[in-house]
Amino acid sequence: MPTTVKLAEYLFQRLVQLGIGSVHGVPGDFNLTLLDYVEPAGLNWVGNANELNAGYAADAYARIKGISALITTFGVGELSAINAIAGAYAERAALVHIVGTPPRATQDGRALVHHTFADGNFIRFAQMSTHVTIAQASLRDPRTAPEQIDQVLIQCLLHSRPVYIEVPVDLVGVPVLSERLQKKLELPEAVWDSAQDKAVEAVLEKVHAAKQPIILVDGEIRAMGVVSDVQNLTKKTGWPTWTTGFAKGLLDETNTNFHGIYQGKWEEETTRDFFQSADVVLCFGAHFSTTNSWGGTSLPDVQNTIFFSDTEIRIGTKTFRDVPSRQALPALLQKLDTGKIQRYEHYPKLRKDQTVSIQDTDKNGPITQDKAWKVLATFVREGDIVMGETGTPGYGAREMRLPPNTRLFTPVTWLSIGYMLPAAQGAALAQRERSAGKKAGRTILLIGDGSFQMTVQELGTIIKENLNVVIFLINNDGYTIERCIHGVDEKYNDVARWRYLEALSFFGADKGAYTASARTFGELGEVLADEKLSDGEGVRMVEVFMDKEDAPQGPLKDMIEAQKAKKA
Amino acid sequence: MPTTVKLAEYLFQRLVQLGIGSVHGVPGDFNLTLLDYVEPAGLNWVGNANELNAGYAADAYARIKGISALITTFGVGELSAINAIAGAYAERAALVHIVGTPPRATQDGRALVHHTFADGNFIRFAQMSTHVTIAQASLRDPRTAPEQIDQVLIQCLLHSRPVYIEVPVDLVGVPVLSERLQKKLELPEAVWDSAQDKAVEAVLEKVHAAKQPIILVDGEIRAMGVVSDVQNLTKKTGWPTWTTGFAKGLLDETNTNFHGIYQGKWEEETTRDFFQSADVVLCFGAHFSTTNSWGGTSLPDVQNTIFFSDTEIRIGTKTFRDVPSRQALPALLQKLDTGKIQRYEHYPKLRKDQTVSIQDTDKNGPITQDKAWKVLATFVREGDIVMGETGTPGYGAREMRLPPNTRLFTPVTWLSIGYMLPAAQGAALAQRERSAGKKAGRTILLIGDGSFQMTVQELGTIIKENLNVVIFLINNDGYTIERCIHGVDEKYNDVARWRYLEALSFFGADKGAYTASARTFGELGEVLADEKLSDGEGVRMVEVFMDKEDAPQGPLKDMIEAQKAKKA
Repeated sequence: MPTTVKLAEYLFQRLVQLGIGSVHGVPGDFNLTLLDYVEPAGLNWVGNANELNAGYAADAYARIKGISALITTFGVGELSAINAIAGAYAERAALVHIVGTPPRATQDGRALVHHTFADGNFIRFAQMSTHVTIAQASLRDPRTAPEQIDQVLIQCLLHSRPVYIEVPVDLVGVPVLSERLQKKLELPEAVWDSAQDKAVEAVLEKVHAAKQPIILVDGEIRAMGVVSDVQNLTKKTGWPTWTTGFAKGLLDETNTNFHGIYQGKWEEETTRDFFQSADVVLCFGAHFSTTNSWGGTSLPDVQNTIFFSDTEIRIGTKTFRDVPSRQALPALLQKLDTGKIQRYEHYPKLRKDQTVSIQDTDKNGPITQDKAWKVLATFVREGDIVMGETGTPGYGAREMRLPPNTRLFTPVTWLSIGYMLPAAQGAALAQRERSAGKKAGRTILLIGDGSFQMTVQELGTIIKENLNVVIFLINNDGYTIERCIHGVDEKYNDVARWRYLEALSFFGADKGAYTASARTFGELGEVLADEKLSDGEGVRMVEVFMDKEDAPQGPLKDMIEAQKAKKA
Repeated sequence: MPTTVKLAEYLFQRLVQLGIGSVHGVPGDFNLTLLDYVEPAGLNWVGNANELNAGYAADAYARIKGISALITTFGVGELSAINAIAGAYAERAALVHIVGTPPRATQDGRALVHHTFADGNFIRFAQMSTHVTIAQASLRDPRTAPEQIDQVLIQCLLHSRPVYIEVPVDLVGVPVLSERLQKKLELPEAVWDSAQDKAVEAVLEKVHAAKQPIILVDGEIRAMGVVSDVQNLTKKTGWPTWTTGFAKGLLDETNTNFHGIYQGKWEEETTRDFFQSADVVLCFGAHFSTTNSWGGTSLPDVQNTIFFSDTEIRIGTKTFRDVPSRQALPALLQKLDTGKIQRYEHYPKLRKDQTVSIQDTDKNGPITQDKAWKVLATFVREGDIVMGETGTPGYGAREMRLPPNTRLFTPVTWLSIGYMLPAAQGAALAQRERSAGKKAGRTILLIGDGSFQMTVQELGTIIKENLNVVIFLINNDGYTIERCIHGVDEKYNDVARWRYLEALSFFGADKGAYTASARTFGELGEVLADEKLSDGEGVRMVEVFMDKEDAPQGPLKDMIEAQKAKKA
């Protein structure tokens, strides 16, 4: 007799093998029996307040731990989450979306059950998900289910994008062969041949000949699994290194050759001149959306750039296909002759991110965006995760100098307002799991009032899970980022006025949970110095008041000033 | 020179002509200029806390006023709302989903902008929406835009299902011909010919010959626009009339021949016998999903039934196509000879919905589901809207006897938990607009704790709009409806424990806003008698505690009892 396990056991054992510790999601009638197997598999069931939030949380969890799982129910549940799945696709989070579906007999009989359009069509929602996932598995046959699961999980990891698995409720407890579980899933490797060698040689030739080389690191290096290789290369070369917003937080910012985010049009002049006059740019994990490239002004000159992506190396306009960076970078590091490359004795003084001490602010003055983020940067310490929600906090967070071993979330491409609060739940939980018993670093959430309103109920989950989260709620009376774009003083950019600091009590925190508010830099300084905030337990919350027409320096500031000028 | 208006003006003038008074939605960068035209068109901009909630609210608004509009932004906004759009499709709400999209130049240039997958694909999200809308218009050309708008609006009204309109941001202010606005949109009528006459004659023949005829009314009569025709027919014939859950609230329940919802397997015996022995069943607006038909046990015998749908009459197995009920019912009413039909002198005493006086409860005993809904029914008065969220409240609400001129929302087919709270915002707003200056009837929301958590932030909008809403929050410690189905005492059916009555203050209500709690029938009675609750202003909230393993009589009760028996 071959050894068997139940289908759900197979699935969840695979997730455990991949390092998943918690599963996000919401119960629903077609996934309840599936949920019976979550905790027995050694997985923690989070139980979010709604599916969109669960999806956002799972996305962030995946960005910290590498992969995550989300369970929803057919139709209503999966569609509520689909915007989060799309975001995971856009910004490359490896999220396994498992949907509990009606029994096969119900589907085959085209029964007019709930969570359908009562028209006998059961494939509509799966079709919708094909647009936002990299691979899909409709489990229908226990003979093929294990291999189907394995295949989509490999696609999920390889592309670091979401996948979709349908599990009919009657298949949950059906036995399947367990044999495949003996072997852990492994990512396929490229056959390394002379073509690949040639690509690396071509890179080395450029690298050794470069007179003014620089490094530009973008955020797909996380998805590509090459963060430490890139880190090694920046250290080994000592070449001036910049990131995009997407990549900030992935590299050690205390290295002397680290210069923060290259800001394109908004960059300081010496730095921009140096960047633009580079003769070789090593660019890793490019993700050149407008938001991530300062409106396209921070892009390197294609002619001088060597791009390293998932599966290709591109030198100028010549592309070497099927040379995955995951394999190419170790080869490059090994063959790189540091005796032959440009070793900058010194280069011009290039801008670096600076913090601002509270001493250097007007203590009685309002909290202004020009300094607020650099002041908040002084609060960040090693091991923290900093999350700047789309809006002024997300742009402001780009300016923050980060200690080593921190992570940063900022607006990159999907920019779905409301993402960051549930994402803080997912990130903080992943962080706690990674810290293996030691006190986890803090998750510091910087979020505006409009964003906060979108997904506020996930505070209940943060509280329930007792996660180490510090929230700075920027109360600037509405959607300031939208005011920057259009309608600076239009009513449609207002939001309802809540009593934000009552949130913790409402969502079930201990009555003594830390809350504070700050209207001046002096008040902010006091709050930041309070150990109950910096070293407390569970969630803490600070309401920070800012002017509704203030924005961080850069494109937002320019846009709102233009709006105000037009108005005046 | 022909007269022109701007494209956005054209669109919004059409919405105003159709009776829309408020537009739901959330601002986003690609819809901001569109929003500039909302209030100048005489429309109220609601401004919801998130897009899913806005979609739910718009759905309910449409069910009260006939049609509604929702504005979201490209990608992130529209996908967040898509589950609500699907629900509007499933249960036939005429919702116009307007999406602000990137400028045509951006789309044509395949620019890597935010709210995309940075891959130059701009049609992905529109493709996803085709699955959940009845018609779509991608506005690209000012020459055709007015006609495209008109066509989708007609489809929206005709089918009472959602439609999708894409408005590129650069097209908002472009002039279009205004000529078409002179003529209001009209629904197309069927050509009435001998085939249609024959269909009506065939119906009359059955009707005049019937010995024990009954009437079964389902909820699609609202979408079909035949509510008053059906009401007239039940009055004119005096035949015993039942509804489904979907239709309850559409007919005058004080008529002596009205018998509430026919409960199939769970119906009282005399009533079931009478229903099943009918020789002719007139069935209007059938929508036979399992949830709406007591698991398929309340369906009439097809052989004896005459079905009236949007476009067909079906007598037994013979179908007369292209005979819309909207035209057939007036013809039928005109030709019906009440002298020839069965005029019941009396028929057996058939069950009717009963209220339960608080006097007939155990005042010191816990609030139990067997009586709670019938007690709450005593609170309802003419002009109210009663909304029972999916979960025990939705099933309980089916038992409530309703005064005339009320409306009821219950779980029908889509059953998306979280729907009902934002729906209460939409319904209450629609109700206020309909009451034209007089104090609007109350919207009474019956909702469980798990559902409440899903979409709670829309309370902020209810408060901001100062809507006349009374909330009965059933605190039974988690998803009792899921416990009924599976996992009666499993942790995954629990929810975070909030301090529910702090909600009003947190979301910005006046500090004196009415809140109360009730753990016994005695306490519930006192609360219901309090004029501050029954006749107050704005939102009021009562937390009603019930046992987590209690459920209304019917399928839920049977299922949870089976669960408990299995557990024991």
